[in-house]
Amino acid sequence: MTGAVPVKPTFAAAVVDPVAFAAELIRAPSVTPRAADALELVARRLEAAGYRVERLTFATGGVPIPNLYARIGTEGPNLCFAGHVDVVPEGDAALWAHGPFAGTIADGMLHGRGAVDMKGAVAAFLAAALKAGQPAKGSLSFLITGDEEGPALDGTVKVVEWLKAKGEKIDHCVLGEPTNPVALGDAFKVGRRGSLSGILTVTGMQGHVAYPHLADNPIPRLVALVAALTAAPLDEGSDFFPPSNLEVVSVDVGNPVFNLIPGKAEARFNVRFNDLFSLESLKAEIVRRLDSAGVAYALDFQPGASQSFLTAPGPFTELVADAVEAETGRRPEPSTSGGTSDARFIKDICPVVEFGLVGQTMHKVDEATPVADLEALTRIYERIIARYFAAFA
Amino acid sequence: MTGAVPVKPTFAAAVVDPVAFAAELIRAPSVTPRAADALELVARRLEAAGYRVERLTFATGGVPIPNLYARIGTEGPNLCFAGHVDVVPEGDAALWAHGPFAGTIADGMLHGRGAVDMKGAVAAFLAAALKAGQPAKGSLSFLITGDEEGPALDGTVKVVEWLKAKGEKIDHCVLGEPTNPVALGDAFKVGRRGSLSGILTVTGMQGHVAYPHLADNPIPRLVALVAALTAAPLDEGSDFFPPSNLEVVSVDVGNPVFNLIPGKAEARFNVRFNDLFSLESLKAEIVRRLDSAGVAYALDFQPGASQSFLTAPGPFTELVADAVEAETGRRPEPSTSGGTSDARFIKDICPVVEFGLVGQTMHKVDEATPVADLEALTRIYERIIARYFAAFA
Ligand SMILES: [Zn+2]
Ligand SMILES: [Zn+2]
Repeated sequence: MTGAVPVKPTFAAAVVDPVAFAAELIRAPSVTPRAADALELVARRLEAAGYRVERLTFATGGVPIPNLYARIGTEGPNLCFAGHVDVVPEGDAALWAHGPFAGTIADGMLHGRGAVDMKGAVAAFLAAALKAGQPAKGSLSFLITGDEEGPALDGTVKVVEWLKAKGEKIDHCVLGEPTNPVALGDAFKVGRRGSLSGILTVTGMQGHVAYPHLADNPIPRLVALVAALTAAPLDEGSDFFPPSNLEVVSVDVGNPVFNLIPGKAEARFNVRFNDLFSLESLKAEIVRRLDSAGVAYALDFQPGASQSFLTAPGPFTELVADAVEAETGRRPEPSTSGGTSDARFIKDICPVVEFGLVGQTMHKVDEATPVADLEALTRIYERIIARYFAAFA
Repeated sequence: MTGAVPVKPTFAAAVVDPVAFAAELIRAPSVTPRAADALELVARRLEAAGYRVERLTFATGGVPIPNLYARIGTEGPNLCFAGHVDVVPEGDAALWAHGPFAGTIADGMLHGRGAVDMKGAVAAFLAAALKAGQPAKGSLSFLITGDEEGPALDGTVKVVEWLKAKGEKIDHCVLGEPTNPVALGDAFKVGRRGSLSGILTVTGMQGHVAYPHLADNPIPRLVALVAALTAAPLDEGSDFFPPSNLEVVSVDVGNPVFNLIPGKAEARFNVRFNDLFSLESLKAEIVRRLDSAGVAYALDFQPGASQSFLTAPGPFTELVADAVEAETGRRPEPSTSGGTSDARFIKDICPVVEFGLVGQTMHKVDEATPVADLEALTRIYERIIARYFAAFA
């Protein structure tokens, strides 16, 4: 159309209200892997604020997954905020007091899937970063993925590979996962346990229960193996970590009838392990325990295992704790408990800590965050940015 | 149509060729519970031969199940032949060399579902009984069901109740199940083990593997219970029976993901037990073993449990063995091994033994019997009938 004037983004247009923008993100439903629309909202805000935005789509898992890396500034140090805009499914939408994707603000709360995990934190960091503008010395950057809640094959792990291949340096990273058990300021994560899953299979020979001598029931052997696997704790915990823990999460035969001896039995397990084990030493310990049962088995460790990681106490962890304390009046506990996060990939390129909202409603019906928490988190991120460039630039 | 003369059955019309009639029965497909057509073929032959036929339909399981009781003669002793015309499913019909319901006779074999189990034996006894005609003193009778291979709720068990309610007396029974492992004359059954099934459930609390202290994994307790249940043999066998045997046939959780501690775990077991146990003493032993594990569980014994039965050696068992030996030249082994049969219901009203064809192809693709076996079995049944009335009438 002749005469149309292209809109030129200005920094003035880049001021973001964290609560309104979190609601806008919630209204772009983004159950993994369909996070493209929500991610584009972030990309446009960053572009409008002068960030160079790289849209990175990976599809090794078969489905195209959107990610972005965005940076303002060219020098170091480069402080990166990492997060995800994909969310877990809403479940039965009828059970929600407010629509899961309505982004309703009511009674001082922002309601909706992702309010806590973690569209709220993405909006808060975006608001804090845009308020800070381009650092006088150094860079601010964003690593936002659409594949954290899913298989995580084409998300942060691939962006980190891309960053390494490109020689792009990130000096420190803050990940916005919900880290507070009950109230903002409770805790921040300085490490996470590793995770290793396996499937244990015992093969026998199927047959009729009336003729057991013609069959070979694998179940007693499976039971002996599971008992050997779980007989003793893996360790008692380390300086920074709780004890490693192995859970047998399923045992399955799937035989619907009572007169058939099955030919195969299977157990599935997961280990959350601390810094006393490497993946290799843990696998060796599992094999040692299984071998001690003295029966034949097949063992398949699953893809997607992760090492534990620890960002040792130091100026960066102290800076983050200081920023939280300055805002909340409470010094957050350095924690290494809980599940895995994308920090397991980021730790390969730089020190990473995690701080976000209160996790109580995450992954649940009626996920919601107090508006006041979102605003306080934005101020905490502002303090982190200010203190970071004061200390490291 | 005027002028049509109704056909009046005569005893001369009642002669039956066992091979042709077995083929005719196979051509009336009768996968449980759809056995009505096949049963009607038997009913009409018996009526034509002068039997009083009672058609007995029961439907407590929801589906009408056809059965019949037929008798010729009014006096005792009453020798009854028991059997079933229902069959197990054919599976993939394309895998059969001859159609499963074609009743093909080729290369000296009768092919088809039920050839061995047990339309062949039904045809053989029918041929033998019709050749014998009405006993000079005493009665011959048939108890044929359409629900042996299925849930067996509305089959022989109900006919036996009906016989008791009616005051109908059967003195001895021959059941035509396939009893010979390899060749006609190998073995006859003088007893069967009982069967008891149960479901063992352990309840815990579901939760995320990263927070095991907030969950309660039921799997280690289930494993301990299964180990306690299977730690030692139940017995070493008795004079007439092999050892009682407990098989855990399934353990199931059905948890598809590695990051969830399940809330429930289940095991299913079946016991085949000899005359050293009653149902009650067996249940008590199972509870004793489970209690020894020292953990909470729920136990559901399944309906349809059966006691063991034994027809002690004596004139009736000898007479059957003599008849088999006279035809085959080999004295059959008195056996109590293998699965359950409808003898578990019949034993409540009279002594019962089982003798039929060679079981190797039963329940399999290409089920078939040598024509020569069918003819020899018919002669064995003729000898049993003759010797029975000579000895007991
Ligand atoms: Zn998250
Ligand atoms: Zn049968």
